[in-house]
Amino acid sequence: NIRNLAMEKVATTVDFPCKFASSGCKLTLLYSEKIEHEEVCEFRPYQCPCPGALCKWEGSLEQVMPHLLNSHKSITTLQGEDIVFLATDINLPGAVDWVMMQECFNHNFMLVLEKQEKIEGYQQFFAIVQLIGSRRQAENFAYRLELNGTKRRLTWEATPRSIHEGVSSAIFNSDCLVFDTSMAKLFADNGNLGINVTISMV
Amino acid sequence: NIRNLAMEKVATTVDFPCKFASSGCKLTLLYSEKIEHEEVCEFRPYQCPCPGALCKWEGSLEQVMPHLLNSHKSITTLQGEDIVFLATDINLPGAVDWVMMQECFNHNFMLVLEKQEKIEGYQQFFAIVQLIGSRRQAENFAYRLELNGTKRRLTWEATPRSIHEGVSSAIFNSDCLVFDTSMAKLFADNGNLGINVTISMV
Ligand SMILES: [Zn+2]
Ligand SMILES: [Zn+2]
Ligand SMILES: [Zn+2]
Ligand SMILES: [Zn+2]
Repeated sequence: NIRNLAMEKVATTVDFPCKFASSGCKLTLLYSEKIEHEEVCEFRPYQCPCPGALCKWEGSLEQVMPHLLNSHKSITTLQGEDIVFLATDINLPGAVDWVMMQECFNHNFMLVLEKQEKIEGYQQFFAIVQLIGSRRQAENFAYRLELNGTKRRLTWEATPRSIHEGVSSAIFNSDCLVFDTSMAKLFADNGNLGINVTISMV
Repeated sequence: NIRNLAMEKVATTVDFPCKFASSGCKLTLLYSEKIEHEEVCEFRPYQCPCPGALCKWEGSLEQVMPHLLNSHKSITTLQGEDIVFLATDINLPGAVDWVMMQECFNHNFMLVLEKQEKIEGYQQFFAIVQLIGSRRQAENFAYRLELNGTKRRLTWEATPRSIHEGVSSAIFNSDCLVFDTSMAKLFADNGNLGINVTISMV
């Protein structure tokens, strides 16, 4: 466990260029700050926003929509700021994702409903909206997810995530609409769940 | 395992009086329907509505408020249809209850926040409103519970429970406002959680 004091000195006093310098980032940072910055660097390539991380595509923001239209043709798109995201067969066993696109305010939003066992043996649903855009662009919007049942309503309102950050950390932190299978039964109709989605500008 | 056919015949064809006939119930029912009815019979005594079932008091509806005022003096009451239910020290370990009374529309409502591990190792909060009144009276009201955080809002709207049915089955079925400790962090301030409660007539 011999410490390399010379290297430590370098790491705490010398500035390094960001990993995405060749893509346009002009920042130089201490080594200790570099990793954290690169995670949020606006020049980092965008990854495919489809949940499950099965698709390994990455590229620029401008290429995301063409990628979705070409490689994920099964995803439905609805127009308008106020739509219904209909998830069918929510009682299917195991981890399942439902995905839909919503187009409004000249932007594209991806609606995601995930069923998963964050806690073993306890299935929960997580619903969230992400903007096909940067974090800065996402700050201009708000979304509302609403479940309507007989004399019951559950509503979640928040800022959309940017696809640059993705939805997995928000789901991990329950920073989204969360409900378990018992509650889903109160709102589902014949195994189908309609989620009212409203996007607005702030 | 000899079947008593004579008794079975009685049980399926003879009407029995409700267990609460002496309190005023005039119904007579088949034995098979009797148990189910007695669970919801409006002449069944009211139990103490304080969560946890530690208090074994029971009595008539008219006696519930005097009981609460005499035996549960520590419960705070706020007046008005729109109040803030402040739960302090929500990070305390173990199962904890927070209780408050809200007085409006000439009725008394009991606000309940319970922290418990319905799923072992996974703490969740359950918030719900019950009317000090009958099921029929409860149908005349609606309540809204709202958590407000930085650019986030979670809202639950429903019909209050009657204290005659209690809140435990609703909590078991997630038929209330449900959130886990991760989500509580998004809305709590210094370990204290404010829940906006609004009662309305329907
Ligand atoms: Zn950078
Ligand atoms: Zn893809
Ligand atoms: Zn009866
Ligand atoms: Zn009591």
